[in-house]
Amino acid sequence: MSRFDTYFLMKPEDVLDYARERLDYFDDEADLEVAEIGDGNINYIFRVRDRNSNKSIIIKHAGDAARISDEFKLSTRRNRIESSAMILAGKLAPGLAPRVYKYDDIMHCFAMEDLSDHVIMRQALIDHQKFPYFVDHITTFMVNTLLLTSDVVLDHKEKKELVKEYINPQLCEITEDLVYTEPFNDCNKRNEVFPPNLGWIEREIYGDRELLFEAARLKFDFLTNAQALIHGDLHTGSIFVRTDSTKVIDPEFAFYGPMGYDVGNVVANLLFAWANAYVTIADEEKKADYLGWLEETIVEVVDIFREKFLQSWSEHVTEILARESGFDRWYLDRVIEDAAGVVGLELCRRIIGLAHVADITSIKDEKARLLAERICLISAKEYIKKRADFTKGLDFLRIFKETAGSIRV
Amino acid sequence: MSRFDTYFLMKPEDVLDYARERLDYFDDEADLEVAEIGDGNINYIFRVRDRNSNKSIIIKHAGDAARISDEFKLSTRRNRIESSAMILAGKLAPGLAPRVYKYDDIMHCFAMEDLSDHVIMRQALIDHQKFPYFVDHITTFMVNTLLLTSDVVLDHKEKKELVKEYINPQLCEITEDLVYTEPFNDCNKRNEVFPPNLGWIEREIYGDRELLFEAARLKFDFLTNAQALIHGDLHTGSIFVRTDSTKVIDPEFAFYGPMGYDVGNVVANLLFAWANAYVTIADEEKKADYLGWLEETIVEVVDIFREKFLQSWSEHVTEILARESGFDRWYLDRVIEDAAGVVGLELCRRIIGLAHVADITSIKDEKARLLAERICLISAKEYIKKRADFTKGLDFLRIFKETAGSIRV
Repeated sequence: MSRFDTYFLMKPEDVLDYARERLDYFDDEADLEVAEIGDGNINYIFRVRDRNSNKSIIIKHAGDAARISDEFKLSTRRNRIESSAMILAGKLAPGLAPRVYKYDDIMHCFAMEDLSDHVIMRQALIDHQKFPYFVDHITTFMVNTLLLTSDVVLDHKEKKELVKEYINPQLCEITEDLVYTEPFNDCNKRNEVFPPNLGWIEREIYGDRELLFEAARLKFDFLTNAQALIHGDLHTGSIFVRTDSTKVIDPEFAFYGPMGYDVGNVVANLLFAWANAYVTIADEEKKADYLGWLEETIVEVVDIFREKFLQSWSEHVTEILARESGFDRWYLDRVIEDAAGVVGLELCRRIIGLAHVADITSIKDEKARLLAERICLISAKEYIKKRADFTKGLDFLRIFKETAGSIRV
Repeated sequence: MSRFDTYFLMKPEDVLDYARERLDYFDDEADLEVAEIGDGNINYIFRVRDRNSNKSIIIKHAGDAARISDEFKLSTRRNRIESSAMILAGKLAPGLAPRVYKYDDIMHCFAMEDLSDHVIMRQALIDHQKFPYFVDHITTFMVNTLLLTSDVVLDHKEKKELVKEYINPQLCEITEDLVYTEPFNDCNKRNEVFPPNLGWIEREIYGDRELLFEAARLKFDFLTNAQALIHGDLHTGSIFVRTDSTKVIDPEFAFYGPMGYDVGNVVANLLFAWANAYVTIADEEKKADYLGWLEETIVEVVDIFREKFLQSWSEHVTEILARESGFDRWYLDRVIEDAAGVVGLELCRRIIGLAHVADITSIKDEKARLLAERICLISAKEYIKKRADFTKGLDFLRIFKETAGSIRV
């Protein structure tokens, strides 16, 4: 018997004992230290390090409520979904997800690779850093994790078992509320709006019936379309980067949903970085250079995703009817259309909703921030309403740049 | 301990003991008799009757392989899905599904209401009987079981738990193969074709690229669209009727799929009855009368379904975005479009595939049968390819009648 045979919420010193007793990772002579390093809202994250060898490991541990508040009850099952989605992503897209060493379904924790030599991409983009391999890595990650878990490739019975395994009601509800519902009305009274936008949002968002109708269509797609095992939260805060390396983390929102949700999230969050750079870099040459890199990245995320998707389809398709001539392009065009809709949803919800992004909130000058927000919101409406017109990477960039070039605040 | 504490395949005499020991239905003095009455391919069906009181009950029992062949392995779990779907249907649409008295998850059997005073609707239609309440009953059944299990009405977390509970890989695979795949090519070499159609089918079905492309779209919808808890096999062989009563049976194919699948199946199987009457009733007056009733029934199944659907939506909608003006009609129009596609699929697969229908196979005159089959196949192509043009009941009838009026064999 061990005290780790029954679940309890571990404190740092418990995690140290746990690492000694339950992980087959450190030497017997290891001189371990522990630190709680996470500041997320939901889980507890610890780093355990051996002072002798400098080997280290991350332990992610779920409470039966969110870390920020006991009132926010969440099943510890999310920990299993997260670790198994991470393991699966690592198999499908080798090198692009952290290695998972152990999952413990009693203590609701898992041990994974320490990525301290990486940084969170959102902050790196705010610091105007470039990542030349990012496009290649993220497009491979998305094509492999999405297409290879879909009915195009996977045996349909096996896919259904995965759908069942990844049914994720509580985390999906968060997305449904924050991304699909609350940005379009303030029904739950949780929206946080940068004050100068208040009247504009009531008129141009809450009052735009066509926009609300299209948001309803997109919401039902998210609720019902069990297309692929998606990451479900693939923004730049869920991506660890180093110049030569990309690691996708935090797949606790994983479930069978529309592929476009992941693709759209990546693009939208690159657009936030663009908006940040556009209003914050004073030096014109530096600004042009950094925006140029971001623009190339945005365009290529879509275009290289398309290329690899079609290539992977031709190599891996097993569904006989999906081999029908032209079906691959028709299918991909629908994914890109969905992605455009999601770009618009994400642009909206990060400006209007409960969870903002540092790319925008870190803009100190009020007028500059307002400009950045309006670029996001005005173009968001176009991404959502005209999503069927989006096919190529340039389509995604053009509307954002045109909006930036045409508005004043 | 009882021998019914461990699963085994029951013979009739075992069922008799089981009814005495495990069912709280008959009196202690009951003089029970048993008969195996099912001749289905998959399960064993027994009627247990008390000779004294004439009370009777049906016991449906699942083997771990199909009744017709040990080679066809099927999980006994289907028995749980069937009984719980039947119970749920009875709650949502009172009086329109058999009462379930007991479900036994060890013996994989359930006891339900004996409907010996009803007949299977397919045979009754072949016998040219009319059922004046059928439209009212079946439209209520579909609206209640479909809309009330969808994200329009149900709490989304609760709905996801139902999706999980009704993941049904093996039974879905049968549908995917027989309805969505094999009618469009003979990949599994199981298609059975009425010989005079052989060349025509190779040219007009297997050779129609547009048709195959649309079938692929419909197949992916069936594979991914977790819209509502559908019956999954709602043809006239799954419906017991009496003049004043309708009972939907056999929901073992139930899973979260597209609503249009159920609606389309009902309409298609009424069209088979129409084709049968059209080529078999010699007396012109009787023919006009019976076709007239069938036509009214077909039109009203769609139109009254639409009416009740919109009415129920306005009464039960809980999803805030689904309240957006016009969204109900847009949503319903997509259900009807899907239903039209499914009408085409069902018309095809019952003529070309492995599982034929008695409405057609019972037509003795070879030329008459050929005519009936061609009406089905030629119009099937239109239902599939032009499904976006279908809105009202008359749209569903018109194409079939026009085809019947324009072709000769």
